[in-house]
Amino acid sequence: MTMQGILTGLRVVELSAFVAAPLGGATLAAMGADVIRVDPPGGGIDAGRWPLHQGRSLYWENLNRGKRSVVLDLRSDRGAEVAARLAADAGVVLTNLPQRGRLEYERLRERRPDVIVVSITGRADGGAAVDYTVNAGTGFPLITGPEGHERPVNHVLPAWDVATGFLAVAGLLAADRHRLLTGEGRLVRLSLAEVALVVASHLGLLAEAQLVEEPRGRFGNHVYGTFGHDFRTGDGRYVMVLALTPRQMRSLAEATGLPFDRIDADLADEGERWRHREELCALLEPWIAGRPLSDVAATFERHQVLWGPYRTFKELLEADAAAWRPHATALDFGETERRAAQPPPALGAHTEQVLAEIGEDVAELRAAGVVP
Amino acid sequence: MTMQGILTGLRVVELSAFVAAPLGGATLAAMGADVIRVDPPGGGIDAGRWPLHQGRSLYWENLNRGKRSVVLDLRSDRGAEVAARLAADAGVVLTNLPQRGRLEYERLRERRPDVIVVSITGRADGGAAVDYTVNAGTGFPLITGPEGHERPVNHVLPAWDVATGFLAVAGLLAADRHRLLTGEGRLVRLSLAEVALVVASHLGLLAEAQLVEEPRGRFGNHVYGTFGHDFRTGDGRYVMVLALTPRQMRSLAEATGLPFDRIDADLADEGERWRHREELCALLEPWIAGRPLSDVAATFERHQVLWGPYRTFKELLEADAAAWRPHATALDFGETERRAAQPPPALGAHTEQVLAEIGEDVAELRAAGVVP
Repeated sequence: MTMQGILTGLRVVELSAFVAAPLGGATLAAMGADVIRVDPPGGGIDAGRWPLHQGRSLYWENLNRGKRSVVLDLRSDRGAEVAARLAADAGVVLTNLPQRGRLEYERLRERRPDVIVVSITGRADGGAAVDYTVNAGTGFPLITGPEGHERPVNHVLPAWDVATGFLAVAGLLAADRHRLLTGEGRLVRLSLAEVALVVASHLGLLAEAQLVEEPRGRFGNHVYGTFGHDFRTGDGRYVMVLALTPRQMRSLAEATGLPFDRIDADLADEGERWRHREELCALLEPWIAGRPLSDVAATFERHQVLWGPYRTFKELLEADAAAWRPHATALDFGETERRAAQPPPALGAHTEQVLAEIGEDVAELRAAGVVP
Repeated sequence: MTMQGILTGLRVVELSAFVAAPLGGATLAAMGADVIRVDPPGGGIDAGRWPLHQGRSLYWENLNRGKRSVVLDLRSDRGAEVAARLAADAGVVLTNLPQRGRLEYERLRERRPDVIVVSITGRADGGAAVDYTVNAGTGFPLITGPEGHERPVNHVLPAWDVATGFLAVAGLLAADRHRLLTGEGRLVRLSLAEVALVVASHLGLLAEAQLVEEPRGRFGNHVYGTFGHDFRTGDGRYVMVLALTPRQMRSLAEATGLPFDRIDADLADEGERWRHREELCALLEPWIAGRPLSDVAATFERHQVLWGPYRTFKELLEADAAAWRPHATALDFGETERRAAQPPPALGAHTEQVLAEIGEDVAELRAAGVVP
């Protein structure tokens, strides 16, 4: 299953569940790393995670494409020993599960001094937290959702899991670079909670909460500090329309012919577009409501308006042939043949192959009950 | 401003605006890379982006911490030549702006055969798209937000920008690893739209849309396929409560003493928790509504319930001292002194210093109007 790629030669043992570490591992595999996911017999706690189809977890399958799958009883002494040998042989471990005993970083270092372990936790202190509790704590759910709605609104996309998975890959490769240059390994730690905190900081939201007296409001689908909103077309579809730059504001005026100049403001200034957002919307709404999506799309494309249609996942598949067989990663390194998403492994499909590679006697392990 | 770090010795020229490339550059700088952001005189199109405070863009400042800032008139022939020299000298370019002329990858290769260029676009074909239009197209806004709400609900967090910024860092370091091992450079491309598509694929949402007849519903704050929801406490605060595992379901039962066993289902099965979510909520709601947050928190912590309070950004600052001065990146490489977020550069503060490093005559460039 391992193919050529920019990371050919990198081998990673993944001990994981749910999204962040599996997504990181899948991204490494898509770049050509040999990623070996190790699970307990019957699979980890995410083996049956929804969405399901005919008893298969579409979630597990799609988060583990391109990897090799090994099943080992990690609670047994012998199983933990085999896993530690495998980790030391690979030299890189990616995990979002607590690692104790032989699989702890300090213990692995005794076997392999330059080992790299990337360890993802929920909270920075190692405590339990998941995307949904971290998101609740950051402030985003109280400023997301319709204006006037009182309750928090969760995101459905597990955005912190996704960000953390990709950042874990960056951290792993940074440590690998350091190892290539110096011969030293590293323990690399990150938490969903700190990823959320640092991102909120980068976006200026923490500085705003410190410096600006008035709390950040809930502005529905308005894009804060500029112009952007959703609109309903004549045939009942929705479109997102923005003007982030002066040129995009001019495009919108040219495309629609609407008298935006009657608004008493310099609309080349994004702050003015924000302050006059309701007037802008009041002009645009009937124009868009009076046309089917196809007309809106044609006119907006012709004038290079910054816009996009809202689509369900099924509509996305209808509209975009690429959605039927996405690439294994969004990173394009210019290979002559970019890699499509690989099939998922059956649970444990590579147990014999991988254990034989490190010289284990699989028949003996099976007899000992370490391998099913 | 450049400090020691795991990426010490890596130099990156950033030509960017808004979130994805600046966040990637800030993350590289936080790991010790020397990141040089080049902007036109007066700043790029994001120089005044909201949130603002006393005329300062808190957004720009926080996305550019730890970098060096150079101002050059890139439209002039001489300015483009200086930028290309700078890029070739650094050997790595990170950009989310269209690059033409001397700054194109093929042209840069003529100066430096092993150059790495990481190029972020909106759409995979290079066309214009931003987080908000990409998100509209993926399907998430139509399944986010209160049940029964008809319109799409945008996320406020620019999740695709964030994911793309971190994935760009991973791609840059993968290409750098390849260069260290082979001496070859690369053009690395990625788009916000393809990042969204690949993530939707990894989460099983595209497979579900292909295989499952019924379209994915909008389930408000329920966590699909398991148990998780928000609840209001007696003192008017909100909490997120989950039971993703059988152990967490037992914790919830023990913490509250509620008669979940009267629900006619095996609640150790996540699918059963999902099917009976309304009954679970109906039992939990009055229990939580009858207690202030402090009591709920103490009981849940004692029993290791998976939960978290919803907080505004101001409440986050009150609750978490770390939020006042976050680390520069969530990646912890075990440095004895982890790096706090650095001050932002003033626009152009390092123009003289950086240009002198590549042997340019800054007085002459200033006389020619290339540098302000």
